[in-house]
Amino acid sequence: MSKKRVELPVLAAENAAAPCCPPLTAGELSVPDSERMAAMFKALADPVRLRLFSRVASHPGREACVCDIADVGVSQPTVSHHLKKLREAGLLTSERRGTWVYYAVAPSVLAAMSAMLDLPADR
Amino acid sequence: MSKKRVELPVLAAENAAAPCCPPLTAGELSVPDSERMAAMFKALADPVRLRLFSRVASHPGREACVCDIADVGVSQPTVSHHLKKLREAGLLTSERRGTWVYYAVAPSVLAAMSAMLDLPADR
Repeated sequence: MSKKRVELPVLAAENAAAPCCPPLTAGELSVPDSERMAAMFKALADPVRLRLFSRVASHPGREACVCDIADVGVSQPTVSHHLKKLREAGLLTSERRGTWVYYAVAPSVLAAMSAMLDLPADR
Repeated sequence: MSKKRVELPVLAAENAAAPCCPPLTAGELSVPDSERMAAMFKALADPVRLRLFSRVASHPGREACVCDIADVGVSQPTVSHHLKKLREAGLLTSERRGTWVYYAVAPSVLAAMSAMLDLPADR
């Protein structure tokens, strides 16, 4: 019996930080796109996360030591939890340098979110 | 006894649809601004709400009858719940015309959210 050649479907690479999703005005969103976009918006749907994010984003070079941004009036474990959520959503990247962890804005993700909300001239 | 004229404080009008909040990169967010922005992002942090919103936003004139957008694979009460959340966040407006309710995109809120996420050239 000869072996049959099986054609496997080509799977798209999963990449959380990939520019995602069409503008919200472009047409009906697919279910997978809506789930990916909702996860990104969820990362910004918390006042403490927004304040931490804006602290990083407004630092020179859009990068900040955790030691410079953690004073937002919540406990250190809570700060860590929120920074982790921002990292998991692809909005921040992190890097350890010696004693401290540095966080930086991932500009492509932010630009993608901004583009999604962009309203072209009315039709 | 003569009546005293009481000076009442002038209260700022509460307006959910007011353009809100500086860009996330502009500096540290205030607590009230972060709370207002988080509420707007929360409204988009759900896949069904995003799909409903994109259905309205991609209709001609960015306006749609609820009868044309409700078929997103969830029950009618769930659709109503999500449309109410989008309305409360100021992202959609609604108007009853005869039998049906029509939803329209509130462009100023969307533009404000897009501006918040906008990254000017790096410093």
